[in-house]
Amino acid sequence: MDDARGGKSRLAEALTRVVAREGISGVSVRAVAAEAGVSGGAVQYHFPTRAEMVLYAMEWTSEQVEQRLSAVPRWGDVREWTREILLELLPLDVDRHRQHAVWLAFIAHAETDPKLADVKRQTNEKLRGMYSRIVRARRELPVTDGTSTASSPTASTGIEMDAPLLQSHVDGLSLQLAALELDEAIRVGPRLLDRYLVLAVDGPEKESEQ
Amino acid sequence: MDDARGGKSRLAEALTRVVAREGISGVSVRAVAAEAGVSGGAVQYHFPTRAEMVLYAMEWTSEQVEQRLSAVPRWGDVREWTREILLELLPLDVDRHRQHAVWLAFIAHAETDPKLADVKRQTNEKLRGMYSRIVRARRELPVTDGTSTASSPTASTGIEMDAPLLQSHVDGLSLQLAALELDEAIRVGPRLLDRYLVLAVDGPEKESEQ
Repeated sequence: MDDARGGKSRLAEALTRVVAREGISGVSVRAVAAEAGVSGGAVQYHFPTRAEMVLYAMEWTSEQVEQRLSAVPRWGDVREWTREILLELLPLDVDRHRQHAVWLAFIAHAETDPKLADVKRQTNEKLRGMYSRIVRARRELPVTDGTSTASSPTASTGIEMDAPLLQSHVDGLSLQLAALELDEAIRVGPRLLDRYLVLAVDGPEKESEQ
Repeated sequence: MDDARGGKSRLAEALTRVVAREGISGVSVRAVAAEAGVSGGAVQYHFPTRAEMVLYAMEWTSEQVEQRLSAVPRWGDVREWTREILLELLPLDVDRHRQHAVWLAFIAHAETDPKLADVKRQTNEKLRGMYSRIVRARRELPVTDGTSTASSPTASTGIEMDAPLLQSHVDGLSLQLAALELDEAIRVGPRLLDRYLVLAVDGPEKESEQ
């Protein structure tokens, strides 16, 4: 791994630990340096400003999620592996709970910082393409390979709305589950997801193909 | 209006304007005093600490939402007025967009502050009772008057899951709509809500009553 990149990743990870503990307000060059066990100068070598550091850490967090999702095996029964991907997006273990909290902090902060808002938008677009492929795969419809118009957030007829609806469901369910104790979240999360899939993804299959 | 209460409300409103502009990190006694046009001493008279001020402002914001919802007329066609309540929860005008951003900042900050987490939990519980009543009303089922077990987040059979699912939908849809330009959000928001109501609330009526 490239040294500079390795150094930046390590600082990004340290920054997310600070955010998990103290929120975005807790982030400073000094706090991140202390968390990573390096000098303030080492942090400033990579990130001249606090804003650049937060931006990089948000991008890094988005990449972590993407890598975790791409590691889910995509073979066998399509309803099984697409379900696995959706479960992977919910805060159902300590790491994902922490990552959800950190991402929420970045999203909230993005309301006041256009560059963070761009990262949020790009991440949402990638995920929306994935939700569209999942809906189509579960309905045995042709799956296009990426950012087709079928995944547009502004689509307004039948099946084209069901990808943004699935995205809403996963985002909103994550918010709810994050507020529960972990064992409770693990108990109800998969059931609520399955209920949603029956009602709004697999159920209306025939109607949507007409 | 009680003077002390009026003073506190005014400061809470000023605090939300600071959060909308600069995020939670921007909140300080000095910033809120400047925003409200009062002295730092006047702020500290009501709120000895920054944390108390943030807590009060979060409670105040939650009450604002509750009051807005209770102002929606509840007569006529049940599917119409319940839809109006749900639309009222989406960030479909400038004020509600701003309120959504501020609430998101409080929610994110609540991850690091147990008292804010309590406000979040209480607000969610109230809303969950309302979602449960909306689902039951739209399905012409008996509506209980409040925090019945039917609205438990941990309910795990059929219709009992549909209130937390509706809550997830509204929360997740709000996140998505907040990322769009307002005219776009106004265009797609009601359509996505209506699609969800058909698929997951009104559609499975018969199945759920069995």
